[in-house]
Amino acid sequence: MAVNFPSQCEVFPVPGARIGTANANIKGTEVNPGRDDLAVIFLAAGSKVAGLFTRNGFRAAPVLLAEHHLSRADIRALLINSGNANAATGEPGIEDARKCCEELAAQLGLEAAQVIPFSTGVIGVRLPLDRILQGIKKAAGHLSENDWLCAAKAIMTTDTEPKCVSRKVEIDGHSIVLTGMAKGSGMIRPDMATMLAYIATNIEIAEDLLSGLLERAANASFNRITVDGDTSTNDSMILVSTATSSAPAIVSEGCAAYTSFLNALVEVSRELSQMIIRDAEGATKFVTVTVSQGGSSDECLKVAYALAESPLVKTALFAGDPNWGRFCMAIGKAGLRNFDTSTVNLYLDDVCVAENGLMNQNYREEMGARVMRQSEFTLHVTLGLGESRETIWTSDLSYDYVKINAEYRT
Amino acid sequence: MAVNFPSQCEVFPVPGARIGTANANIKGTEVNPGRDDLAVIFLAAGSKVAGLFTRNGFRAAPVLLAEHHLSRADIRALLINSGNANAATGEPGIEDARKCCEELAAQLGLEAAQVIPFSTGVIGVRLPLDRILQGIKKAAGHLSENDWLCAAKAIMTTDTEPKCVSRKVEIDGHSIVLTGMAKGSGMIRPDMATMLAYIATNIEIAEDLLSGLLERAANASFNRITVDGDTSTNDSMILVSTATSSAPAIVSEGCAAYTSFLNALVEVSRELSQMIIRDAEGATKFVTVTVSQGGSSDECLKVAYALAESPLVKTALFAGDPNWGRFCMAIGKAGLRNFDTSTVNLYLDDVCVAENGLMNQNYREEMGARVMRQSEFTLHVTLGLGESRETIWTSDLSYDYVKINAEYRT
Repeated sequence: MAVNFPSQCEVFPVPGARIGTANANIKGTEVNPGRDDLAVIFLAAGSKVAGLFTRNGFRAAPVLLAEHHLSRADIRALLINSGNANAATGEPGIEDARKCCEELAAQLGLEAAQVIPFSTGVIGVRLPLDRILQGIKKAAGHLSENDWLCAAKAIMTTDTEPKCVSRKVEIDGHSIVLTGMAKGSGMIRPDMATMLAYIATNIEIAEDLLSGLLERAANASFNRITVDGDTSTNDSMILVSTATSSAPAIVSEGCAAYTSFLNALVEVSRELSQMIIRDAEGATKFVTVTVSQGGSSDECLKVAYALAESPLVKTALFAGDPNWGRFCMAIGKAGLRNFDTSTVNLYLDDVCVAENGLMNQNYREEMGARVMRQSEFTLHVTLGLGESRETIWTSDLSYDYVKINAEYRT
Repeated sequence: MAVNFPSQCEVFPVPGARIGTANANIKGTEVNPGRDDLAVIFLAAGSKVAGLFTRNGFRAAPVLLAEHHLSRADIRALLINSGNANAATGEPGIEDARKCCEELAAQLGLEAAQVIPFSTGVIGVRLPLDRILQGIKKAAGHLSENDWLCAAKAIMTTDTEPKCVSRKVEIDGHSIVLTGMAKGSGMIRPDMATMLAYIATNIEIAEDLLSGLLERAANASFNRITVDGDTSTNDSMILVSTATSSAPAIVSEGCAAYTSFLNALVEVSRELSQMIIRDAEGATKFVTVTVSQGGSSDECLKVAYALAESPLVKTALFAGDPNWGRFCMAIGKAGLRNFDTSTVNLYLDDVCVAENGLMNQNYREEMGARVMRQSEFTLHVTLGLGESRETIWTSDLSYDYVKINAEYRT
């Protein structure tokens, strides 16, 4: 029941990135017996990889190992499983993740440290290692550049739609490819990146630029969404350059190619991140929350997240009820210094609901209700404190959110 | 459908505090036509009053006026209405509140500044002034020391039960009375006190001790509960000493009478605040969250509120699902410095679920499920970082929470 989920675009292979998937039956025989739940991405020699990982204090075993491997080796393979997050599993969990890396490395003729592992699913349960090792063999046995969509399906948990975005862009007269996939639907308030996102390109990018590009893209996309304010133990976002294109490498922030690539990367990241909100657990609305005239970006984000994560605002979004007093309450609880209610304006799309902290004289309830009946709209707050502006995307809180999360796992 | 809500205790009048209620039809003719929605408490000359108010940035008009009056006059009357919060109403809202005070003052032979006003209900809508002024006349016309329970009913909004607690305690050989009432059910994460709470006693308390007693009681009760993390624009907590008892006045923190009174005050405050959680919107569980071995009280509270306000934890509480990975996620997102998962233990009542950050070897799912099937239980986290300890109380997130808040007002 995703909200205006886009139809699947054409997915372009990224030369130098080959993909395999398998059904490792990670959740046990009775659940989704036929569905793939494991994916491998094998990268050409010379590929470069950058990663961003969750800042949750309970960081999962694969996150710890992935960071460790990224810091020391030329990464050649990504290994992803759904169905089990391998989080809160302590040293044994790290040992399990290491064994998975070793198995994939053996299959592909690599060192274990050249493999970075990712897991998503239930927290606090050990991986079913035997089944996963079998799955790794299967997935590594049939690799293809065309299997991005299969991989996007294999990494889903409570997602109802696979999330895969692909673009061809012209850079310096060369056509280059960006293809990405993501998963995520609940436990979404990425504090770095979303649960799992992978974007690959064939253009060569200087190693020292890769992390910066990734961070800028994350801050314009995955770090600007929230479903329930809950930060996952496994959030990871990865950017890969396979460097197989004949286009000149991007070597400095000053060049036009850098800007072109960044724009395309932000576009792909944003579309993937918005897909997560459209497919959020129980979502019936896709809401853009913009806060402008803040004294700083941080002030704008505090207000935006206070709105987007307030259960009372979210249930009003679900009801399509322009109960703007709840918006005021949430703005007020953001805890801004120098906050002055008398400079706050509030808009639902173009409808001015409140002006200078109280109801606009020309506003009639039906005007707000008309906006909120739509499946997509913008809630815009102007603070009158400065010139900063931030936008985030969120979903509503529905019966189905409760249903999905009361019934998941049990 | 409150959770184990206690049956109504005997309510002792507080000599020197006379109460009147009225139906002012504040929400309009069609809603609850017969129910009282306005209460007046008239205090004897010589009474002393202390107050704590919300820190939400959108502070309601009555909150601003109440603080102003408290700072300059001998307060003689409290005026409370439900059905409309008079919040986000700007200067006109303050003018409305002032007119209400003036009317009550005229009825009781006081100055307007000797009346403090309180409102609770819908935010962002002007008060129906004519009807309220009529209601004030009615309420002031029949005052009685015995009407605490009527007042507790008159101040309810989405509450399903009135909240009224009363005690007689022996201090210095004299029997003194504490009687209190509160309202609140949603928009509950008091940042000072709950939505509205009033406690009166007949023992005389030195003026300079009153605020300190109130703050200590709030920090052991109303400032330790959360339903949805949403801080109200109208939170207020009031402590009144009518000084009509013949018991010696409490004049210093050192004396035994101070300690006896504080203990009784904490007991009454805590019972009232827990009633709010038992009667929380849609609640099916009453959950005590204790975090111990923290490096500071603040660290314990961060973890406790991260748990109590996580939608994924709250839906697991609703489902009675010992999905302890979600507890880990929430502990991890609290953002503690020096946090080390390997020293974290987690208990459901006496059942040790996780030890040193991973599942206890002797734990079986059925053991956790048995605890969580109860309507009340304790979630206890030990952090292994220090010696601080904090306890808060919370409710779960159910279909009915969504229903109540999607349908309220519309």
